[in-house]
Amino acid sequence: MAFHPRKTRDYGCWLNYERLPKGLWQRYSGQFSTVSVRNAGGLAPAIEEELKRGLEGLLGQSPRLVEDLEAAAVTVCAPGDEADTGGEESFRLRVQEDQGQLKVSITSAGERGLLYGTFAFLRALQLGQIAGGFESADGPRTPLRLLNHWDNLDGSIERGYAGRSIFFQDNRLVEDLDRVRDYARLLASIGINGVVVNNVNVSREATELIGSKVGMVKTLAAIFRVYGIRLFLSINFASPLEFGLDTADPVNSQVQNWWKERAAKLYAEIPDLGGFLVKADSEHRPGPFTYGRTHVEGANMLAEALKPFGGVVIWRCFVYNCQQDWRDTKTDRARAAYDHFQPLDGRFADNAVLQIKNGPVDFQVREPVSPLFGGLERTNQILELQITQEYTGQQRHLCYLVPMWKEVLDFDTYARGPGSTVARIVTGSVFPMHWSGIAGVANVGSDPNWTGHTLAQANLYGYGRLAWDPGLPTEQITREWVVLTFGHEPAVVQTVEDLLLGSWETYENYTVPLGIGWMCNPGHHFGPSPEGYEFSRWGTYHRADCTAIGVDRSVKRGTGYAGQYRPENARLYESVQTCPEELLLFFHRIPYTHVLKSGKTLIQHIYDTHFEGVEQVEQMIEKWKQIEEKVDPETFAHVLQRLEEQLEHAREWCDVINTYFYRFTHIPDAQGRKIYP
Amino acid sequence: MAFHPRKTRDYGCWLNYERLPKGLWQRYSGQFSTVSVRNAGGLAPAIEEELKRGLEGLLGQSPRLVEDLEAAAVTVCAPGDEADTGGEESFRLRVQEDQGQLKVSITSAGERGLLYGTFAFLRALQLGQIAGGFESADGPRTPLRLLNHWDNLDGSIERGYAGRSIFFQDNRLVEDLDRVRDYARLLASIGINGVVVNNVNVSREATELIGSKVGMVKTLAAIFRVYGIRLFLSINFASPLEFGLDTADPVNSQVQNWWKERAAKLYAEIPDLGGFLVKADSEHRPGPFTYGRTHVEGANMLAEALKPFGGVVIWRCFVYNCQQDWRDTKTDRARAAYDHFQPLDGRFADNAVLQIKNGPVDFQVREPVSPLFGGLERTNQILELQITQEYTGQQRHLCYLVPMWKEVLDFDTYARGPGSTVARIVTGSVFPMHWSGIAGVANVGSDPNWTGHTLAQANLYGYGRLAWDPGLPTEQITREWVVLTFGHEPAVVQTVEDLLLGSWETYENYTVPLGIGWMCNPGHHFGPSPEGYEFSRWGTYHRADCTAIGVDRSVKRGTGYAGQYRPENARLYESVQTCPEELLLFFHRIPYTHVLKSGKTLIQHIYDTHFEGVEQVEQMIEKWKQIEEKVDPETFAHVLQRLEEQLEHAREWCDVINTYFYRFTHIPDAQGRKIYP
Repeated sequence: MAFHPRKTRDYGCWLNYERLPKGLWQRYSGQFSTVSVRNAGGLAPAIEEELKRGLEGLLGQSPRLVEDLEAAAVTVCAPGDEADTGGEESFRLRVQEDQGQLKVSITSAGERGLLYGTFAFLRALQLGQIAGGFESADGPRTPLRLLNHWDNLDGSIERGYAGRSIFFQDNRLVEDLDRVRDYARLLASIGINGVVVNNVNVSREATELIGSKVGMVKTLAAIFRVYGIRLFLSINFASPLEFGLDTADPVNSQVQNWWKERAAKLYAEIPDLGGFLVKADSEHRPGPFTYGRTHVEGANMLAEALKPFGGVVIWRCFVYNCQQDWRDTKTDRARAAYDHFQPLDGRFADNAVLQIKNGPVDFQVREPVSPLFGGLERTNQILELQITQEYTGQQRHLCYLVPMWKEVLDFDTYARGPGSTVARIVTGSVFPMHWSGIAGVANVGSDPNWTGHTLAQANLYGYGRLAWDPGLPTEQITREWVVLTFGHEPAVVQTVEDLLLGSWETYENYTVPLGIGWMCNPGHHFGPSPEGYEFSRWGTYHRADCTAIGVDRSVKRGTGYAGQYRPENARLYESVQTCPEELLLFFHRIPYTHVLKSGKTLIQHIYDTHFEGVEQVEQMIEKWKQIEEKVDPETFAHVLQRLEEQLEHAREWCDVINTYFYRFTHIPDAQGRKIYP
Repeated sequence: MAFHPRKTRDYGCWLNYERLPKGLWQRYSGQFSTVSVRNAGGLAPAIEEELKRGLEGLLGQSPRLVEDLEAAAVTVCAPGDEADTGGEESFRLRVQEDQGQLKVSITSAGERGLLYGTFAFLRALQLGQIAGGFESADGPRTPLRLLNHWDNLDGSIERGYAGRSIFFQDNRLVEDLDRVRDYARLLASIGINGVVVNNVNVSREATELIGSKVGMVKTLAAIFRVYGIRLFLSINFASPLEFGLDTADPVNSQVQNWWKERAAKLYAEIPDLGGFLVKADSEHRPGPFTYGRTHVEGANMLAEALKPFGGVVIWRCFVYNCQQDWRDTKTDRARAAYDHFQPLDGRFADNAVLQIKNGPVDFQVREPVSPLFGGLERTNQILELQITQEYTGQQRHLCYLVPMWKEVLDFDTYARGPGSTVARIVTGSVFPMHWSGIAGVANVGSDPNWTGHTLAQANLYGYGRLAWDPGLPTEQITREWVVLTFGHEPAVVQTVEDLLLGSWETYENYTVPLGIGWMCNPGHHFGPSPEGYEFSRWGTYHRADCTAIGVDRSVKRGTGYAGQYRPENARLYESVQTCPEELLLFFHRIPYTHVLKSGKTLIQHIYDTHFEGVEQVEQMIEKWKQIEEKVDPETFAHVLQRLEEQLEHAREWCDVINTYFYRFTHIPDAQGRKIYP
């Protein structure tokens, strides 16, 4: 008999709806016994099912569905008076108390708003916030809240660390499509409204998703539709060649017509298809450069084809020379995205959107924010984050990314003066945009707990919440997830929050110092290899020698990358004295004997942070062990095993990095700790 | 229409039998017009066909087959008076002249001797050696002259650089079995008498070669049999588990009986099966260690099963800890084979044979000879060489390995006093053995020219000739191959010989200095990555730092590896002063400022050899270009393209290695050449 993942507790994630603790249960017992859902269209079944599951789970009583809105204790109804709250995805949640009876009203101008309001109600209920007079008007700050799956049709996942694809296997759909529905529900509960189901590196098989395999797309779209989620496809820019044309030149009218016809066929099958995601002219993917055309010509050709159907084309800015020669010190990969796309500002179609990675290189544990944010004023744009932990421990290490993402979102670009944060740019508040938002590279797979490491579920949850509202504080998101997942027990809440909130810094401590990046093993990117990328073609060099490390990216003496920022930031990064120290080795070449603000030399800082990182993991294990009795045994054992593995890996990172620098310098540790020669 | 490789000239290798040049043609024209083959058994068709093809090709006249031995110009007949020449594989080739007519007689005590004699006659004819009074009594010095194929059943080849498997694809036999026959003929022409057709890393599919897929083995064996070659199989030591037993413990009588029954079934199908090759307890392969048993118990159990049928079990000595911790400086992988197997000397069965890699580590461009040669006195043993160029340029670089192999074979172990060379050990002349010989890991695949690089055919040819007679001089082997492949044109002969004979030293010059090894990219092993293996689990560390490089393997201060040799060599290797300099960094840790016998410092030696290596490749290209008019245009263009690629790669090696050491030392090149910082 096959193992049934849905039997495990961790499969439920933050939607287990376990019985409320006694105090809350007493407060709410007997309430919410009737439910009425009106005008929710295709989402009505999902809303009704969720209320039943939620209330039955939390309170132990199944509510009755009634027709009469007035008589119901919980009413979910559109349209309400929500014209002011920002559209069909927003909702108003109000609680009134009348003679001890709570009456909950969820209203919205649209069906999706009702669904989001329903999840918000159940969340607030679990957090103990529901009470007479409670009122919340909420809505997403961004129209595009996307997950990007790098799933291949054979079932493998590029940079996937939680099993196989939950969509595809052997070039077909998986058999267990119920799991896709469960996934859609998880995503809807955090407000995700679009999913790109296939890898941006589009294989020959996946190219057929817009051809002979369109039935697979239709099936998946129907499942996601039940939860108000639109499906997007990664497409192969060279598709016309695969389908018999002899060119994919975007200015060729045959090619243009081919895409128009193809779009019409697709939308005839999937009328609410979100659109296309495109990785073009990047890492050997085809694109307009092949024909001497620009990104604008490429993207706008596709935008034109999608326009009649309301679709958008999302065009990735991850474009750089991946055939660099390490001997070439002039070319700087960090500059590439800005150099390629900033000059094209204002030339993209209304329904074309640029997707920009948070940093200029590639999801390292520490990078500055991409200068394209603030550099593009007249272009639809979304931020790309990586939820899957490619460079941050691959879900074998705990690394909670919400604090990192918050730093990105809170980064002030100064594009329209102080306060022009990335958060305000991707919500369209700094520059007007037709489309804006956030995309995250998914961290889920066929593992029973979805994310490999159960605590990595917090990254998915946190991502969704930030995509909904980039202004949410880290603490609130973290508290929500912990309580929804582990319940209210204070020791558990405190411990899990501590583990999560310290984990990014800890991971950074024992891995790659001060923004230098790329000291990982080539290819799979797991574990330390200080020179793993030093002589490769990928343009990611730290150029360590016996005296110094780092690449000078200043304008005056270096590659000029610092000058891609607005003056306020450019000035800051330009000088060693003012550059934020956590990014010092990203922007400057620094001698090992350079004294940091802490009074320590760079080399001693490296030694100290590495030893400290290992100690922090040891402490994490101790903390976790203290709540053994208060956590589901299976979850406890699983997390403990991961943490113990993390400790072993942290020691390996610490020792390799310290040895690497010791071999260059022969400078001993000031505290005399063990550094292997 | 599929491309037909047999139409290309390079497909024919050294057996193209092109028309002899005018002088020789005139000498032999009209000769050898009749041929008589007698008592050649199953090999008669191959012999007759070869004489026809050879004489027709070389002289333009097809000989007639006649019955009457007395009347024939060429007679091939067993048994002769060959009792003194060493058995059924030996032959006597005699040429008499009578009134201008040459009469050739090839005799042997066995069928295989007749086949080898036939090829020897045709070779001598092409070399212009056939004349009245010519007489040659020749025979193989070794009973086992094997090729090991690391071919997987899916058609991939581990460490294959010449296309896909010529035997397998998609877990079946290839369709083009004619090519296997052509391959058998090539091998027979150089005296190979056994072929292991599948990878020593035996997959689940390949395990079935002794089960449901035995038909595939039978088919291949029948093809090889036509050329007197016996087929061997790599087997999975844990096979019994795959076939339903719950253990593979070699002392378990069920397991023993299972292997006996399995052997009986196999020999019922393939009565001349050579036996098994086993990689056990090595790199995660199963073996007797799983059950707390020894290599002796494992090997002898299989030997017992094969004994009734005359089969042998060949047991690889490539056993070491592949989960080493780089922090562990006590464990020395170089010691492993000797430490594992020397204590077992004298305990293996008569039909068990140890297969020992030439060096203690793994086919690096420069290694000392394995101390097991000379260390094992009472054990059947064969030398394992790697013809496929895993660490020596992967058939994209020219690296002619015969000079390296000759150094190995000429190495004096002093096991029975001076002159106890490896050559004399593997021919059974130092210690008596039931079985001895040489195995080579094959370098062929489905590429039209068999070996990827056409000049890499010389490695296959040279390997076969050395397996036949380890005493053959490099110059003779090289001359033979060049003339048989390219003809007699002096400029071509001189140039190709120059290219071949200098290529190993050149490759060493621009890659890894003085025996240090392992500065290649992990996994695929192509191109430079000086620290690619420095923090890995494979036990291959050079431990370079800012002052020195190398591992001390002396007895006095180091890992003691040097002490595994007989005293004469142990003394030599023990001291920096007496250690041969080409192995200095294998045996010692040396400061960059150490002065070599040349008067140069180590660091300057590294710089000089690397620049020199690049210049040598430039010169190779110039030399090759000078014979453009005298070489087949397709071959010329192909080799030129490879050499130009080699030059680019040589520059990359040179620059990476020089930069790597410069970054440690900041010592400039004495000649001021460009070293990238």
